[in-house]
Amino acid sequence: MKFVSTVLLSTLCMAAIAQEPKNVIMVVGDGMGPAYTTAYRYFADDRTTPAVEQTVFDRLLVGMASTYPARVSGYVTDSAAGATALSTGTKTYNGAIAVDVDKEPVQTVLEWAKKQGMKTGVAVTSQINHATPAGYSSHNESRKNYNEIADSYFDRKVANTFVLDVMLGGGWNYFKRDDRDLVTEFTDAGYQYVDTISALQNTDVSKPLLGLFADKGLNWALDMPDKQRLQTLTQAAVKHLENDKGFFLLVEASQVDWAGHSNDVGAAMGEMQDLAQTMTWLEQYVDAHPDTLVVLTADHSTGGFTIGADTIYKWEPQWLENLKASPFNIAKQVMATNNKVALASELLGFTLTEDEKSLVNAIDTQDEEIAYQTIKTLLDLRTNTGWTTGGHTGVDVPVFAKGPGSEKFRGLLNNTQVADNIFTLLGRK
Amino acid sequence: MKFVSTVLLSTLCMAAIAQEPKNVIMVVGDGMGPAYTTAYRYFADDRTTPAVEQTVFDRLLVGMASTYPARVSGYVTDSAAGATALSTGTKTYNGAIAVDVDKEPVQTVLEWAKKQGMKTGVAVTSQINHATPAGYSSHNESRKNYNEIADSYFDRKVANTFVLDVMLGGGWNYFKRDDRDLVTEFTDAGYQYVDTISALQNTDVSKPLLGLFADKGLNWALDMPDKQRLQTLTQAAVKHLENDKGFFLLVEASQVDWAGHSNDVGAAMGEMQDLAQTMTWLEQYVDAHPDTLVVLTADHSTGGFTIGADTIYKWEPQWLENLKASPFNIAKQVMATNNKVALASELLGFTLTEDEKSLVNAIDTQDEEIAYQTIKTLLDLRTNTGWTTGGHTGVDVPVFAKGPGSEKFRGLLNNTQVADNIFTLLGRK
Repeated sequence: MKFVSTVLLSTLCMAAIAQEPKNVIMVVGDGMGPAYTTAYRYFADDRTTPAVEQTVFDRLLVGMASTYPARVSGYVTDSAAGATALSTGTKTYNGAIAVDVDKEPVQTVLEWAKKQGMKTGVAVTSQINHATPAGYSSHNESRKNYNEIADSYFDRKVANTFVLDVMLGGGWNYFKRDDRDLVTEFTDAGYQYVDTISALQNTDVSKPLLGLFADKGLNWALDMPDKQRLQTLTQAAVKHLENDKGFFLLVEASQVDWAGHSNDVGAAMGEMQDLAQTMTWLEQYVDAHPDTLVVLTADHSTGGFTIGADTIYKWEPQWLENLKASPFNIAKQVMATNNKVALASELLGFTLTEDEKSLVNAIDTQDEEIAYQTIKTLLDLRTNTGWTTGGHTGVDVPVFAKGPGSEKFRGLLNNTQVADNIFTLLGRK
Repeated sequence: MKFVSTVLLSTLCMAAIAQEPKNVIMVVGDGMGPAYTTAYRYFADDRTTPAVEQTVFDRLLVGMASTYPARVSGYVTDSAAGATALSTGTKTYNGAIAVDVDKEPVQTVLEWAKKQGMKTGVAVTSQINHATPAGYSSHNESRKNYNEIADSYFDRKVANTFVLDVMLGGGWNYFKRDDRDLVTEFTDAGYQYVDTISALQNTDVSKPLLGLFADKGLNWALDMPDKQRLQTLTQAAVKHLENDKGFFLLVEASQVDWAGHSNDVGAAMGEMQDLAQTMTWLEQYVDAHPDTLVVLTADHSTGGFTIGADTIYKWEPQWLENLKASPFNIAKQVMATNNKVALASELLGFTLTEDEKSLVNAIDTQDEEIAYQTIKTLLDLRTNTGWTTGGHTGVDVPVFAKGPGSEKFRGLLNNTQVADNIFTLLGRK
């Protein structure tokens, strides 16, 4: 090999390694800034062993991405502009669903995949017409036009301009309305429809699939019988999408963001656990199907979540390990009982201190939000968690990838490059 | 090439690319979590152009690192345990200076480099016996033993067990004491001594060098005539260290951490600016000296700094662009004048609102800390910056690298792997 120059060898090598994926699974952890994936490592740590165990996120990290929107919206993005950057490669204004700053539609990677003959799907824990899935599957000047976005999923299919073969998530409020019953329209058009997650076990993979499981978003992972609901949706979607021409699937852990907005560290770790299980399954899927590329990133970080607070050098996630329900659900149950301390202790999974007992006994309100805030404060103090906002922050987010083309996602990417890379890997010049 | 398998080609390629560096420059941005490098991008952005400009950090990012200390200290590290992990590859307790959990000394990469015949140096903006430089250059059960650590720099040289050829930073309080004058001991032993940064321009590169420029840490970058003081120290150190057998230099932007502890976004951006200039120079140095590896990471993040706060989707660093002094210095000057609003406006570089005028006029105190807090609050509100702690947080930190061996720092590293990689590249089995 002496006669082959390093540069030539390097070039040959990259060419040999680089392959075009047959299937692309894009995963968005909405709101999942670097503090979330880090915190999950310590939450999931087996504290009976000397070492801190690696997580699936640790195994798959390849780089980071910036998240800023078009200049008109400053440096802090919302989920619509974030999704549009990730799905189209275009920076836009906050609120925009796959349209540019002039409100002109921009092609998404999912649309491009469909044009190449691939099957397409979304599997999310929000309503399926929420900002992120909409940002891959629709075009609208405002994320708030939920009905228009839901309608577009069916109307563009009829117009033969776009088709989602699999849609799994929440959204009855938008798909079964007084003025329009999109569920019936989809079933009349040949879609299989299910309205329970357990029904996903017995679907006919030869048919396109619509699965709606809640009015809007699904319940918190911590409150569901199937706490790995995103993994279940993802497995079902993949089973339906597998075909000779490949598929593009958007998966979203939508509610990491919602936990961040609520400054709810218990719910956040529940959602991260669901995402981690999903990613572990996807990691194994790529091992078994080496023609599949999986990419995970976040659209932004939420809540100003920090691992440690108040000048104390500790973060103690062990107090989140034994939650029997989400903090909101615990709050509601505690409101409805006379023996508040006993029930709170049972549901939180630890014995309360005298200060905590006082806090819990003060939940004599009929206001769910005040009760919820009390439980969240108790957990923030126990774990020593910090928050700075009910909104988003501008910190760069981690990027994870596995499979053919994953080397393109190394280093610092602009969020638009995530779309650019997928377009390139799927053959768009 | 059809007959060469992908795996074989890949292996050959990595072998061809991998080279051992002659020189290693390890840079630590103390406290520089991901929010700091992200924030710097927006602070440095030219807002008259449509695009957000890339920073040197964006060009050099290769991965991230976890920062947790030994289990006995939980998940949130201090700078001593952080430095020890980065310098020795050993997780230890908070406060430990290159000793393990049993308080036994552990070899540092700088010591190993010296044993290989390389020259060694430290260039930092703290005192040179502060936690991070000490973690590379000394062994002590406690970072607080400043005098012992300072003494060890000279005594170990006499004992011929260890030598720092270049030491640049602060520390008169420890090196010129009533009970011991280490400066004289060093000069008697052949070291050149300078006590002003400007004197670094005329040093004799054939001699080892001690430069001390402050009682403890240097002044904030914003308050110094040479705002790129770390770059100046780094250039001087490299000039003295260059030799046929190579060198190991530790550079630390020590005061990013101090700005974080103070929750001072103005000072933080000033320190990041100095680090960015330093890294830009180092990037060019590697281009000109491709046998040099530069690695930059942080030991942890500080302050729970967030880009955005209070449920408002904005971060406005433009209000930090025209600071004429550090916020602490501005506060002191405003305390001492009768025309507070005019002076504050001049030093901050923008016209004050009525609310801000009231805030500034309320600085009728003799308490510097209260005055300082007022200026910091004003800037936090202007920029919409969030903080959660006066201490550290546990979020993973970014890793940057350029030069031979830089590919070893890709992906998610445990902070101990930073040392492990350097040991490997410098030939320790």
